[in-house]
Amino acid sequence: MVLLDGKAAAEAMKKDIAGEVARWIGECGRKPHLAAIVVGQDPASLTYVRNKENDCRQVGMDSSVYRLSANISQEGLIECVRTLNEDPAVDGLIVQLPLPGHLNEQEIIETIDPSKDVDGFHPVNVGRMVLGLPSFVSATPAGISDLLDYYRIPTRGKECVIIGRSNIVGKPLANLLSRKGPGGDCTVTLCHSQTADLAKVCRRADILVAALGRPLFLKANMVKEGAVVIDVGITRIEDKSTKSGFRLAGDVDFEAVAPRCSYITPVPGGVGPMTRISLLKNTLQAALKRNQ
Amino acid sequence: MVLLDGKAAAEAMKKDIAGEVARWIGECGRKPHLAAIVVGQDPASLTYVRNKENDCRQVGMDSSVYRLSANISQEGLIECVRTLNEDPAVDGLIVQLPLPGHLNEQEIIETIDPSKDVDGFHPVNVGRMVLGLPSFVSATPAGISDLLDYYRIPTRGKECVIIGRSNIVGKPLANLLSRKGPGGDCTVTLCHSQTADLAKVCRRADILVAALGRPLFLKANMVKEGAVVIDVGITRIEDKSTKSGFRLAGDVDFEAVAPRCSYITPVPGGVGPMTRISLLKNTLQAALKRNQ
Repeated sequence: MVLLDGKAAAEAMKKDIAGEVARWIGECGRKPHLAAIVVGQDPASLTYVRNKENDCRQVGMDSSVYRLSANISQEGLIECVRTLNEDPAVDGLIVQLPLPGHLNEQEIIETIDPSKDVDGFHPVNVGRMVLGLPSFVSATPAGISDLLDYYRIPTRGKECVIIGRSNIVGKPLANLLSRKGPGGDCTVTLCHSQTADLAKVCRRADILVAALGRPLFLKANMVKEGAVVIDVGITRIEDKSTKSGFRLAGDVDFEAVAPRCSYITPVPGGVGPMTRISLLKNTLQAALKRNQ
Repeated sequence: MVLLDGKAAAEAMKKDIAGEVARWIGECGRKPHLAAIVVGQDPASLTYVRNKENDCRQVGMDSSVYRLSANISQEGLIECVRTLNEDPAVDGLIVQLPLPGHLNEQEIIETIDPSKDVDGFHPVNVGRMVLGLPSFVSATPAGISDLLDYYRIPTRGKECVIIGRSNIVGKPLANLLSRKGPGGDCTVTLCHSQTADLAKVCRRADILVAALGRPLFLKANMVKEGAVVIDVGITRIEDKSTKSGFRLAGDVDFEAVAPRCSYITPVPGGVGPMTRISLLKNTLQAALKRNQ
């Protein structure tokens, strides 16, 4: 069993990205620039955005963060998005989700200029990805695809089962892995709450992705001997043996499942670090495209 | 074995649509209007467009057809699309595909105003459909979904296998059938040229859709007893027993497969007539939305 070390893969990829960024700066005379809008004081959101700023700095990109009041109106937030859409110094633009309940998230997503939508959440980017056209692919699916590629795990002709049909992981990943060409060509089955006999379906998988957000859900009897298991979940669960009284758990019952796998991601340190790489790659891509 | 009579279902649905159209006209004082652009003299394209005009007439909608020279430039065609985008009298707009080889089809598709894109080919509509947002769903996937619904064939929790990952059938249908809610909730597997042991995968299917465009491809040993089989293919093949020397064949070896099925579509008269209904429904939808 090989551990899919997302942290190490991400570090290696950051070096490559930093090299490309340096080359781009040499050509264009400025740094690629990621702008992030964060609304309110949700501690997790603030941490995520801080991590993104650090990542940008590490690869030599500029970043700027717009911290808006939790009470901002829909119109006010739209105005802010539009201003950054039009700002020629901004290459990539993200709005940290979730937004406070009084705001219409979907409308905000659709206000972002698709050519700056480095989170890949705009329907145009989702649609273009599905159709096999150049697009920004959202962070988690892209990160998983990059991790498989980094470890040279073949996808072509493999049976892939994905548990969870969320808009940001399951659905785009199903489309990405079944596309024609390198990194795709899987025979993908997308499972969800209505799937009958989920364990049986999962046991078909050469590549099994758990992305349903229920800690320790995937048990050993759901995994074929030799499967590649990708764990997207990350939930804080009680653990009295730790100092804090908590630990992070994935959707996979790692202790039980790992011995059956050819490859498996740890949580933390698996998919998580790879998602952050995707945002950097998309921002660089946006900058490259704007300069063409 | 029950034959899924798309022709009869389409006729019944046309009556419902005609009723809704009449009500809409009563409210708005004009007819919903479908505009079609056809480039060149391809006989199949001209026939398809003529059928669409007839369908519109039958349900009380207006239609207009713009027949352009096969030599039109990309810019000329874009100009024509833009004019119809801006024409307030046009509710739905389609460009009959395929286009002559010197034209960039994708650019033309992306020029159509998504709110008039009743073929549902624009990436925005594809993306919105995948994300479960209101959108125009392209004709064949929507027609298949309507046919299942018409015969009250349950989809929830069923295993659905789709053969063929085209942008206009396989991919959107996979997304449509795996969405949450009525008419969705299938556990969908999307198969293609790289799928290993296709027959085995197909035998899992409660609902099996053949959409690869290879006549008589699907044989009895690929079908589970009691499955629902949907045949999207339609190809002219040689048949010396007919007057013309040809007949229309689907992707399914109907004679061999039908006895194993609970339901099966004939070719012709199955999926085909349903696809034409989808265009009418989308055009009515576009008109309703523009009037809100």
